[in-house]
Amino acid sequence: MAHRLFAETFGTFWLVFCGCGSAVLSAAFPQYGIGFAGVALAFGLTVLTMAYALGHVSGAHFNPAVTIGLWAGGRVPGRDVAPYITAQVIGGIVASFVLLQIASGSPDYVLATNGLASNGFGEHSPGGFSMMSALTIEILLTGGFVIVILGATDARAPAGFAPLAIGMALTLVHLVSIPVTNASVNPARSTGPALVEGGIALQQLWFFWVYPITGALIAGFTWRALSKD
Amino acid sequence: MAHRLFAETFGTFWLVFCGCGSAVLSAAFPQYGIGFAGVALAFGLTVLTMAYALGHVSGAHFNPAVTIGLWAGGRVPGRDVAPYITAQVIGGIVASFVLLQIASGSPDYVLATNGLASNGFGEHSPGGFSMMSALTIEILLTGGFVIVILGATDARAPAGFAPLAIGMALTLVHLVSIPVTNASVNPARSTGPALVEGGIALQQLWFFWVYPITGALIAGFTWRALSKD
Amino acid sequence: MAHRLFAETFGTFWLVFCGCGSAVLSAAFPQYGIGFAGVALAFGLTVLTMAYALGHVSGAHFNPAVTIGLWAGGRVPGRDVAPYITAQVIGGIVASFVLLQIASGSPDYVLATNGLASNGFGEHSPGGFSMMSALTIEILLTGGFVIVILGATDARAPAGFAPLAIGMALTLVHLVSIPVTNASVNPARSTGPALVEGGIALQQLWFFWVYPITGALIAGFTWRALSKD
Amino acid sequence: MAHRLFAETFGTFWLVFCGCGSAVLSAAFPQYGIGFAGVALAFGLTVLTMAYALGHVSGAHFNPAVTIGLWAGGRVPGRDVAPYITAQVIGGIVASFVLLQIASGSPDYVLATNGLASNGFGEHSPGGFSMMSALTIEILLTGGFVIVILGATDARAPAGFAPLAIGMALTLVHLVSIPVTNASVNPARSTGPALVEGGIALQQLWFFWVYPITGALIAGFTWRALSKD
Repeated sequence: MAHRLFAETFGTFWLVFCGCGSAVLSAAFPQYGIGFAGVALAFGLTVLTMAYALGHVSGAHFNPAVTIGLWAGGRVPGRDVAPYITAQVIGGIVASFVLLQIASGSPDYVLATNGLASNGFGEHSPGGFSMMSALTIEILLTGGFVIVILGATDARAPAGFAPLAIGMALTLVHLVSIPVTNASVNPARSTGPALVEGGIALQQLWFFWVYPITGALIAGFTWRALSKD
Repeated sequence: MAHRLFAETFGTFWLVFCGCGSAVLSAAFPQYGIGFAGVALAFGLTVLTMAYALGHVSGAHFNPAVTIGLWAGGRVPGRDVAPYITAQVIGGIVASFVLLQIASGSPDYVLATNGLASNGFGEHSPGGFSMMSALTIEILLTGGFVIVILGATDARAPAGFAPLAIGMALTLVHLVSIPVTNASVNPARSTGPALVEGGIALQQLWFFWVYPITGALIAGFTWRALSKD
Repeated sequence: MAHRLFAETFGTFWLVFCGCGSAVLSAAFPQYGIGFAGVALAFGLTVLTMAYALGHVSGAHFNPAVTIGLWAGGRVPGRDVAPYITAQVIGGIVASFVLLQIASGSPDYVLATNGLASNGFGEHSPGGFSMMSALTIEILLTGGFVIVILGATDARAPAGFAPLAIGMALTLVHLVSIPVTNASVNPARSTGPALVEGGIALQQLWFFWVYPITGALIAGFTWRALSKD
Repeated sequence: MAHRLFAETFGTFWLVFCGCGSAVLSAAFPQYGIGFAGVALAFGLTVLTMAYALGHVSGAHFNPAVTIGLWAGGRVPGRDVAPYITAQVIGGIVASFVLLQIASGSPDYVLATNGLASNGFGEHSPGGFSMMSALTIEILLTGGFVIVILGATDARAPAGFAPLAIGMALTLVHLVSIPVTNASVNPARSTGPALVEGGIALQQLWFFWVYPITGALIAGFTWRALSKD
């Protein structure tokens, strides 16, 4: 179990450090910045790379909503859920503080202005999207993401391709939803930056626990119900 | 059969929601928008991800032209064609209305101005391309897309790679043809946005049933004829 | 043999139509254009997709330099070289004329101004690079491309991944060399647009036969010599 | 051993020539340039392509930090380390001089102004990041990169996917860290351009030997220690 939790902590560190790092450090670089498409690719590649590297250790969830969705889908025993989530949240928080330290080494970075790629809705949404839009898209995309995970790791799916499919699903989620919520679908990814930023990001943090997990539960229970037919 | 149709509905929902969603929500975001290349990647990843997840359930067509092309190629029995297409069209329509609801939560979105990523030619083509150009490119690209599907799922092709090849073929199709028709090659993807937008998008909808299916039939029958030699 | 030649003609058609099509139709679209990176991705995906679809038919060369490099490497019998190259050149020429017809349906397209994505050096290089730079980069990149093909299709390489590696090698080649020569490494891809454009593109066409083939021969003979040790 | 060293020299040549070449030739091309995201993709694809082609020959390290990290992880015998590193450095240096020759064929290129994509920190960092930020990110990203290599080539990981995972990890590293250090994680990639540029790039070269190797050693020893449990 220690190995598995260490893998979840390190994998979630990698996801948050590289994903949010690409947004904070590279997205808005003058003239050559990678934009939302580059950030979307980076988030997907964090999962693709670490799922190939550590999937055989812990299953490579790196995301509390995924762990809960896989539990609902009957793939993960209930006793694993709390330790996995704890390990993931620790990884995400450590990543955020390390990223803050690195970003602060830039002459242009100010935390209060540039932030740390936290998630948000309403006045804290990148495109000013309403809470209702944010809620709908987080439920839908987390649900779809969990369906990809359940389907691509099914015994009938081609072996070995799941990390590719799952990583690219996370890229797809970001291509669609960065303007709406800055793309969460992962409470651990939301928690680290919110703790560092404080303020409105922290006030809205509950939202990115409730709705991604709601989507994951719907997907997991639906998959399990249909699999029994 | 119920499982297969549900998979087709959900997969086509995912294709239209995430594909058109990336266009409506993210393509034109000020300064960091993903542009046509990001939209092309998103459409391809909808198929890559759901084909790995649901390919073992329904074959993962998510597209009436593909279902008809595979029927012409001798891979799908005639009795499956109508139910598959119905399931796909329902998924595409539901996706379009959900996307409209989310987009409407933005302070800047107006349906009449921004649209819902519908397909078009002539005055409704993104680059003002003629009907003749639109017709040629939709036939050619749908035909090539169906060839990739028939070839990559052939027993002699390497196992497991078909969703990668097919998804990336859809990305390629979009990299080429978004300026001409906004890239259809899929009547279900065209139908949802046309019903939501109405007007010229709805008047031109017939076009995106006729020509993608024409290309798919040519590809399917040609493949079957050559395979018999 | 007829099936194999048909596959080479169709595959090269797909490579030139979609690759040059992305450059002519999408690269410079106002505000949302895909730029050189999108064109690089498109060229790579033409090979990735058709190599998965038709690799089991013809080997999926789609490129006279590749056919000659594989002959030099001892993988292709001498009697196949001329028919393969003929089939490829026909596919590239047909693709170029079809692309011209589609591009001409745009209100903004003028052949003499916009061209058809032909290759060039000196005054016809996109970035004004000298003949010496152009010659060096075409030899080097074609040589490296052929090494990737020979290595990734070697019996000791992991099975099934060759189309991914080869397609992405073509994307890489374009990411580096579009500014220098508009990226050829493929005489058939150069021939079609040069015949349509005429003028300086046609005058320089010999260059894109001589140097890509030179690079391919060096790579093929080197690989074969080293394999005998 | 001669074959293996030749593969390391050629693979590192490919990495530095195509990776730095994309930065020097294509990143800043007016209007259509590939930017940091295109350069990140190019670096990753150099490894993806040559690891599929030459992985069965030499293991495809192409990077002194990787060779040392794999030695620390118990995968490479100590007697291979010095010859591998020598071969890699030679490949990187040759690539840099060839790239300089090609870039000099552009009417706009001046070595003193445009450079050769060397790595740096402080006043030589693309975004002006401090030495402390540069040091932290090079240790972390090289460490994570080596974890991906050790994990994806583990006997329990799915066979054949390691070059995909490792190449995309290098793309990810670049998406995050080009603004900070121009992204090294590879002393051989840093050495070639520093020798060509001289000046501050050469003065800071020690940094890109010390910190990537530090990260690789931490990752390698940690992996080995945990594997023994």
